[in-house]
Amino acid sequence: MAQPIADRRDVDFVLHEQMKVTQLTEKEIFADFNRKTVDMIVSEARSLAIKEIMPTQQPGDAGCDFTAGKVTLPECFRRPWELFMEGEWLGMCDDPEWGGGGMPKTVALAASEYFQGANVAFMLYHGLTHGAAKMIEEIGTEEQKRLYLKKLFTGEWAGTMLLTEACAGSDVGALETVAVKNADGTYSISGNKIFISGGEQDITENIIHPVLARIEGAPAGTRGISLFLVPKFRVNADGSLGEFNNVVCTGIEHKMGINGSATCSLNLGGSGDCIGTLLGEENKGMRSMFIMMNDARQLVGLQGFAVATTSYMHALAYARERIQGANMLKPKDGGVPIIQHPDVRRQLLEMKSLVDGMRSLIYYSGICIDSVKTAETPEIKEEYSQLLEILTPIIKGYCTDKANEVCSHGVQVYGGYGFCKDFPVEQLLRDSRIFQIYEGTNGIQSMDLLGRKIGMNKGKPFMGFLGRIKECIDKAKQTQGLEAMGARVDAVYTRYTEVVSEIAKAAMGDKVLNAFGQSHPLLTVTGDLTMAWMLLWRAMTAQTALLDNPKKKDLSFYEGQIKTCEYFVNNTLFVTEGRLNAIKTMNGSVNEISEDAFGSK
Amino acid sequence: MAQPIADRRDVDFVLHEQMKVTQLTEKEIFADFNRKTVDMIVSEARSLAIKEIMPTQQPGDAGCDFTAGKVTLPECFRRPWELFMEGEWLGMCDDPEWGGGGMPKTVALAASEYFQGANVAFMLYHGLTHGAAKMIEEIGTEEQKRLYLKKLFTGEWAGTMLLTEACAGSDVGALETVAVKNADGTYSISGNKIFISGGEQDITENIIHPVLARIEGAPAGTRGISLFLVPKFRVNADGSLGEFNNVVCTGIEHKMGINGSATCSLNLGGSGDCIGTLLGEENKGMRSMFIMMNDARQLVGLQGFAVATTSYMHALAYARERIQGANMLKPKDGGVPIIQHPDVRRQLLEMKSLVDGMRSLIYYSGICIDSVKTAETPEIKEEYSQLLEILTPIIKGYCTDKANEVCSHGVQVYGGYGFCKDFPVEQLLRDSRIFQIYEGTNGIQSMDLLGRKIGMNKGKPFMGFLGRIKECIDKAKQTQGLEAMGARVDAVYTRYTEVVSEIAKAAMGDKVLNAFGQSHPLLTVTGDLTMAWMLLWRAMTAQTALLDNPKKKDLSFYEGQIKTCEYFVNNTLFVTEGRLNAIKTMNGSVNEISEDAFGSK
Repeated sequence: MAQPIADRRDVDFVLHEQMKVTQLTEKEIFADFNRKTVDMIVSEARSLAIKEIMPTQQPGDAGCDFTAGKVTLPECFRRPWELFMEGEWLGMCDDPEWGGGGMPKTVALAASEYFQGANVAFMLYHGLTHGAAKMIEEIGTEEQKRLYLKKLFTGEWAGTMLLTEACAGSDVGALETVAVKNADGTYSISGNKIFISGGEQDITENIIHPVLARIEGAPAGTRGISLFLVPKFRVNADGSLGEFNNVVCTGIEHKMGINGSATCSLNLGGSGDCIGTLLGEENKGMRSMFIMMNDARQLVGLQGFAVATTSYMHALAYARERIQGANMLKPKDGGVPIIQHPDVRRQLLEMKSLVDGMRSLIYYSGICIDSVKTAETPEIKEEYSQLLEILTPIIKGYCTDKANEVCSHGVQVYGGYGFCKDFPVEQLLRDSRIFQIYEGTNGIQSMDLLGRKIGMNKGKPFMGFLGRIKECIDKAKQTQGLEAMGARVDAVYTRYTEVVSEIAKAAMGDKVLNAFGQSHPLLTVTGDLTMAWMLLWRAMTAQTALLDNPKKKDLSFYEGQIKTCEYFVNNTLFVTEGRLNAIKTMNGSVNEISEDAFGSK
Repeated sequence: MAQPIADRRDVDFVLHEQMKVTQLTEKEIFADFNRKTVDMIVSEARSLAIKEIMPTQQPGDAGCDFTAGKVTLPECFRRPWELFMEGEWLGMCDDPEWGGGGMPKTVALAASEYFQGANVAFMLYHGLTHGAAKMIEEIGTEEQKRLYLKKLFTGEWAGTMLLTEACAGSDVGALETVAVKNADGTYSISGNKIFISGGEQDITENIIHPVLARIEGAPAGTRGISLFLVPKFRVNADGSLGEFNNVVCTGIEHKMGINGSATCSLNLGGSGDCIGTLLGEENKGMRSMFIMMNDARQLVGLQGFAVATTSYMHALAYARERIQGANMLKPKDGGVPIIQHPDVRRQLLEMKSLVDGMRSLIYYSGICIDSVKTAETPEIKEEYSQLLEILTPIIKGYCTDKANEVCSHGVQVYGGYGFCKDFPVEQLLRDSRIFQIYEGTNGIQSMDLLGRKIGMNKGKPFMGFLGRIKECIDKAKQTQGLEAMGARVDAVYTRYTEVVSEIAKAAMGDKVLNAFGQSHPLLTVTGDLTMAWMLLWRAMTAQTALLDNPKKKDLSFYEGQIKTCEYFVNNTLFVTEGRLNAIKTMNGSVNEISEDAFGSK
C-alpha cells in the first residue's frame, strides 16, 4: 500500500492548488518556503511518519506500564522520539530564537497530518510539549523562557497540562489544588490531578507541568484560578536539573484507545514540597489557559482528521483488494473487488467527502494562522484571528464527530476483519473516540459556538465567516458545470442563516434551554455547511484545472473532486436541511420531560 | 443503581400495556402464562441476570485463552452457565418434548433482554446452541433429534454455526470446505472455517457444529452447498461420547469487544477423519441456513438493543449523580447533576427514544412469532411470518446501527470517564460494534430490504407492514393531545411511501446501481418510521392510561412517553425527511466516480 496514511496527491492539491500556500512567500518571514522547499518538507515528514512512526502504532496499543510510581512507555517510542527531535519537527512553526523552524502553519499541518495519522498516541506527547512551550512563550517571564523554552521546543524535555481533577472536569472552576506563596516568591502546590496525558514518562529527563491551582484565599470559581509552572525535577539557575519536585504519579488509566499515551493521575506536594512559579498573572489562569485553548482544540481536530484519513486509506486499499461477491450488473461473472458494490462505494465516498472536506478546512485554518502572523494591518490580523475563533469549535467538535464516523465506516468496510486487532482500522476506531471528549467535550464545543462565537463582537466575525461561504457559493453558481450544485448549497445556506439567527435570538431570551438543547445539532449543520464550502471550493479548483488539459491520471483526480462534491450536496446536505428544520422547531421536550420520566431509579 | 440493565417499569409497560401479552392466554398452548406467571418469569430472569451474569461482564472482557489447541473461557462463566441450565432458560420457548419451556416468545424476549444486557459475550454461547438445536428440530432426522436435541436445548452440550471461511464471508457461495460421502452414509469433512463463535471452549463436554460444505462434485456457488452435523466428539448410538472427531481449533481472534466469546479458527479433518451426517437435503444447505437466518438476525438485533439499554441505564444513573457545572438558569447556584444540562438531556432523550422504540419493536416481533405459532388459519400464519420477514432487516440492521450510536452517547455522557475501562459504558461501546457486522453486515441487511423484502410476494407483505403503521397514525390523529404528532408522522409516512415506491422501481430497472447506493439510507429511514410507529403507539397507550387517574409515579412515566414521542417526531423525523429527499434524488455519484478517483494507489 503506497499511501498508508494520507493521499499525497490530495495533500498537494489542497496545499498548492486550493490554498496556494506558496503565495505566502510574498511575506518576508516565509520567503524561503517555495514549492520545492514545501514539497521537500512534506516528503520528509511523510517518510519519517511511514518508516519510523507508523510501525509503533500497533505495538504502542499494548499500552504503558505503571509500577511503583514509574511509567514506562512502549520501548519502540524511543527511536522515533529521537528522530523527531533530530529532525526539529516539534517546533516547526516556532521562533528560531527558541529552536523553532519558522515554517508556515499550513505546511506544518500537512506534515503533522502524516505524523498524527501514523500514531496519534505517540504524537500526543509532542502536542502537549508544544502547547506548554507556547504558553510560556506567550506569557512567561524572561527567566521562565530562558529556563524552559528551548528545552521544550526541541523536545529535550516534555510538557503537559494539569487541568482536570476528579470533581473538576468540564467545570474547571471547581478545582481544589492549592498554591501557597513562599517567601522567595515561588509557590508550594498541593493537590491531585487526573487524566494528565504524559503526566509521567521515561522518555525525557524532565517534564514541565503547567498547573491550574487556586492561591490560598483567592475567590471561588474560575475567577480565583492561577497558572503555575511546576517541573518534575527542579531546574537550577544554570539550567541543570535539581532535586525531585514531588510530582508523584499515582496511577495510569486503562482506556479504550490511545493506549500509547500515558494518562496519569498525579499527586502534587503530598510527599514533600512541590514548588512552582507563577505563569502569567495571579487569578488570570483561566484567561491564560484560553490563549492556548484554540491551539489545543485545533490540534484535537487535526488528530481526529488524521486518524480518519488513515482509516480511509486502509479501507480503500482493502476494498480494492478484497474479492467477495459478484458485480450486480454481472451476477454470473464471479467474485470482484468489493469496491464494485454500491453500498461499499457509498461508504467509501462518504468517508472521502468528509476526509477531503476536513483536510481543506484544517489546512485553511493554517492559512488563517499564517495570515494572522503576517498581517500588515491590525484589521486583517483581527479578521483572521476572529475567523479562527469561529472555526475552532467546528474543527474540534464537528471534525472529531465525523472522524469517529469515518473510522467506524473503516471497520465496516473490512467486515468481520475490521473487528479484529490484526487490522489497523480496529485501533483507529478506538483511538478516535477520545477526540470527541477531551479538550472540552463536543457538547461544550457546541455551547461555545452557540453561546459565545456566534454573537462574539456583535456577530461581526460570524458574519465574516458566512460571507466567505457565500462568496464561494456565488462563484460556484457562475462556474460552468457547477451551477446546479452551487444553487443547492445556496438554498441550504439561506435556510441556515434564517435558522441560526432564530436560535441565536432564542439563546439570549427565555427560550435559552430550548436553544441549547439544539446546540449540538447546530454544530453539526454548521460543520456540514463548512464541508460544503470546502468541497465546492475544491470542485471549482478542479473545474479550472480540467480546462487546462490535465494528464490522464490527473483527469480522474479532478473529476473525482467534482463527483465528491456532488455526492455531498445530493446526500449529506439533504440531511442537513432536515436537521435545520428540526432545530427551527426548537421543541422543548428535552427540557420539559421530568427527570423521573427518563427512567426508574 | 436499582435498574442496572433495563428499566423494569418500561419492560412491564411494553409487555402488559402496549403488547397486552397476556391476551395470549386465550390460546391453549399459552393458557398458563397469566400476568402473575409472566411477571414471575421476568423477575427471575432479571434476578439471575443482575446477580449472576452481570458480574461476569467486566472480567469476561479479559478474553479467552488459547493454548495448544485448547480454549479456556473466563472461569467466572462456569457458575452462571450452570445456573442458566438449571433454570432451563436456554429452551424457554421450545417444545417441552425436547426439554423446552413452551413460553411465549414475547415473554422470553423480556427475559432475554436482561440476560443479553448483563453479558452479551457470555450469552452468545447460548444463542448459537439454541440456533443449532432449532435447525436440527426443523430439518433433522429422527436419529439426529434423538442424539442431539435434548442435550442442546438443556445446554448440556453447546452448538455453533460453521459458515465463514477466509475467502467466503458475505459471499457464502465461495466456500471451499469439502464433504466426501462414506460407504456408511456419513461424510468425511475437510476444510478451514474462521470467525466461529464458541467453536471451541471448555465449558460443555461436547460441541455440535452445523457445517456448510460442498459435496465432492456438487455445483459451484450456493447451489452446491450442503449442511452437515459435525460433533466435536463423535456420539455413540446410545448417546455416550465417542472419540475425538478431529475438529481442531487453530487459533482465536483478538477483537475489539465481546472478548468473553471465543472466536475460533477451526480445521476440520486435517489431523484425522472428521465425520459428519447430512442435515437436511443435499445441496439445499443454503435454504436450510435461511430457515434459521431470521432467528439469528433477530437475535443480533436483540443483542444490540440489550447492550444499548444497559448503556442507557448506566448513563442515566451517572447523569443523575455526577455534579458538574451550574444550571443555565441559575448560574450562581453552583454545581448541579449534569442531567440538568440541556445537551446532556438531549443525549439522554435521544438514547431513551431509541431504546424505548427498539424495545417495543423487538417485543412486537415476539408477538408476531407467537401469532405464527398460534395462528388458527394459514392466512394469519402467513401474514405474521411474512411481516417478520419485513421486520428482520430492520431489527438486525437498524437496531444495531442505533445501538452503537446509543452506546457512543453512553460514553459521551460519562465524559473522560467513559473512555476508561473502569466504567461499563466503555466495554458496551466496543461490544456493540460487532452487531453491525455479523450475521450479514448491515449493508447486506439493507440490500435484503430493498432487493428482496419490499417486492416479496408482489409487495403484499410490505404493504401489510405499511398498513399497520398507517393504522396507528390514523388512530393517533384522532387521539386527543396527539393530533399534531400524528399528523407529522403521517406527512413523513406519505413521503416515505412515495420514495420507497420510486426506489423499488429503480432497483428493478436500469438505475439499479443508483438504487442500491441508497439501500442503507433506505434502511435507516424505514427504521426511523418504524420507531415513530412504536413511539406513537406508546404515546397513545400512555394517553389512555392518563385518563385513568394514575398514581403520581405513573403519571410522570406516562407523560414521559408522550414527551419521548414528541422529541422523536420533532427532531429525528425531520432528519428522516431530509434523508428521504436525498434518497429520492438517487444521485449517481457513488457509482459514477472512477475507482482511481477514490485515491492514489
